[in-house]
Amino acid sequence: MRATVMHRAHDVRIENVPDAVIVQPTDAVIHITRACICGSDLWPYNDLEADGGGRQMGHEAIGLVEAVGAEVQRIKVGDLVIMPFAYSDGSCMFCDEGLPTSCVHGGFFGNGGDVGGAQAEALRVPHADGTLYPIAVGPDDALMPSLLTLSDVMGTGHHAAVAARVRPGSTVAVIGDGAVGLCGVMAAKRLGAEQIIILGRHADRIALATEFGATDVVGERGDEAVEQVLELSGGFGAHSVLECVGSEQAVGTAVQITRPGGAVGRVGVPHYDAVPGALSPTFYRNIVVAGGPAPVRAYVDELLPDVMEGRIQPGRVFDRIVGLDGVPDGYRAMNEREALKVMVRP
Amino acid sequence: MRATVMHRAHDVRIENVPDAVIVQPTDAVIHITRACICGSDLWPYNDLEADGGGRQMGHEAIGLVEAVGAEVQRIKVGDLVIMPFAYSDGSCMFCDEGLPTSCVHGGFFGNGGDVGGAQAEALRVPHADGTLYPIAVGPDDALMPSLLTLSDVMGTGHHAAVAARVRPGSTVAVIGDGAVGLCGVMAAKRLGAEQIIILGRHADRIALATEFGATDVVGERGDEAVEQVLELSGGFGAHSVLECVGSEQAVGTAVQITRPGGAVGRVGVPHYDAVPGALSPTFYRNIVVAGGPAPVRAYVDELLPDVMEGRIQPGRVFDRIVGLDGVPDGYRAMNEREALKVMVRP
Repeated sequence: MRATVMHRAHDVRIENVPDAVIVQPTDAVIHITRACICGSDLWPYNDLEADGGGRQMGHEAIGLVEAVGAEVQRIKVGDLVIMPFAYSDGSCMFCDEGLPTSCVHGGFFGNGGDVGGAQAEALRVPHADGTLYPIAVGPDDALMPSLLTLSDVMGTGHHAAVAARVRPGSTVAVIGDGAVGLCGVMAAKRLGAEQIIILGRHADRIALATEFGATDVVGERGDEAVEQVLELSGGFGAHSVLECVGSEQAVGTAVQITRPGGAVGRVGVPHYDAVPGALSPTFYRNIVVAGGPAPVRAYVDELLPDVMEGRIQPGRVFDRIVGLDGVPDGYRAMNEREALKVMVRP
Repeated sequence: MRATVMHRAHDVRIENVPDAVIVQPTDAVIHITRACICGSDLWPYNDLEADGGGRQMGHEAIGLVEAVGAEVQRIKVGDLVIMPFAYSDGSCMFCDEGLPTSCVHGGFFGNGGDVGGAQAEALRVPHADGTLYPIAVGPDDALMPSLLTLSDVMGTGHHAAVAARVRPGSTVAVIGDGAVGLCGVMAAKRLGAEQIIILGRHADRIALATEFGATDVVGERGDEAVEQVLELSGGFGAHSVLECVGSEQAVGTAVQITRPGGAVGRVGVPHYDAVPGALSPTFYRNIVVAGGPAPVRAYVDELLPDVMEGRIQPGRVFDRIVGLDGVPDGYRAMNEREALKVMVRP
């Protein structure tokens, strides 16, 4: 079968790889009907070193179940399923607590190791019963783009908002106008935020953020951004700050624009070692720093009805569709900010 | 009047200073009936540099109101009051939200500047109506030691437990066997924790921690401590970790012994710049880091009944009582871990 393999930074190829097959009795194999390229895929796209083997990429998908192992009970061949970016057994204590990304038998797709990637024709899914979420629509339903976002980007934006404790009436700041940031705006709005300040500088993305609910825009970075957000939020900062970038500057800005007693929800994969935690401004102001990989599997129950009934349209973050052959150029386009988020139809 | 003045590290003197008087119409002046030395006072005791002036010390007290300014309405001359370590107007939005340590007109006692310290005969209290909490007992009531802890140490232990999200049935780890750590043990027990692991190495303090509710003791530090806590908590760490020290090692240990999805409540005044925040272990495991100066004024309503009715006895952390003249030696004794916490009767 054909799959996306990243060999090193800026070297993404579509290659023939061994077919996805059932290995464990709890596995399923899905035929990928939709996948996408994630902002987090751009980190290895810029810094992966060659190790001889190459990494099968992709961790967001919707697919048709082609085969199931002998112990799979809930998922059936022919089901159309959302595949979250992490697999999980659905039964350990962390899954029970709503944190499947910490499942004791879990792991991540498209991350190297012996589990493949979703930017491919097919994929083996460990712990199919715990991982996959069947949906009752056809594979070409018009809602497909928005449903696809429940595999990662919308669930991640929602996680940022939940971790940052967005509540009705909140003032929220969202750092980053990538697809996660835009979904964060939507999630904050959905949770009742009154003021939503987006920090970003790409006109087309800002326009979409405004449609999703952003009320204010800050185009600066660093100290100037801090100053502007404080001014926009009555001098004290936002109750909730969604850190959707993952850079040291972004997390530094995040704690500075958080109101005393407020919270930072960080979902940008950290490319820094530490979070500011000194007396000022973090400790002195009782700022909460939360977040991590979004437990998107646990959020589908809550978000799916809003997608199915059209109350949110996170699929609007996709502005380009490619076949498998178009994936390498899709990486390039996202990396150069020419595309916001690329959908893949293998 | 006589007051405690710290001139530089290890140089604490009792000196005559100008009498405390009403300056603002919202002030009160209290005659200090009880004060104490705080673990946080030991930081300047070890590192304060001489600046010519000296710093009036002390921020925890119970006192009798001697005078009130023209605009003070609620507090009356003759009231016996708890004086929290921070003053606050009681009416700004942060006070309304239960975060008086971020009061827009607030500040801290015994911290330099033009507000004096509580290790003294008397003290000017700004924003008396918002700051002081009248109690209906006599000044020599047997409950006085425990009531005094509501000015800081018990409220701070409680804040660590609240910030670390202690819930009924939780496994809790408390880093530090100083007075705050011991109060943290008591607070965790009070909030329903089932397992409470104390990390400390002083036999007498550990004995008290056990009486307060600690179920397990870890005497090691660093990697060995991490290993032991993980072993004691089923391999995954504690739901809630109370960081009651403030050193870089303590906060580093804290995030390593927190269970995925768990929280660190830090109340040790940070003598570090940053909190570990990299992919592993903090981000990847969705660990929450919260805490800061405890809003003890806001906690008195909740904690006072338990003290008045004897359900908690945080006053047991005091193991030495001195007059004002004994304060310098009290600092020495606490610094050398000869005393756990020193009460001052000016």
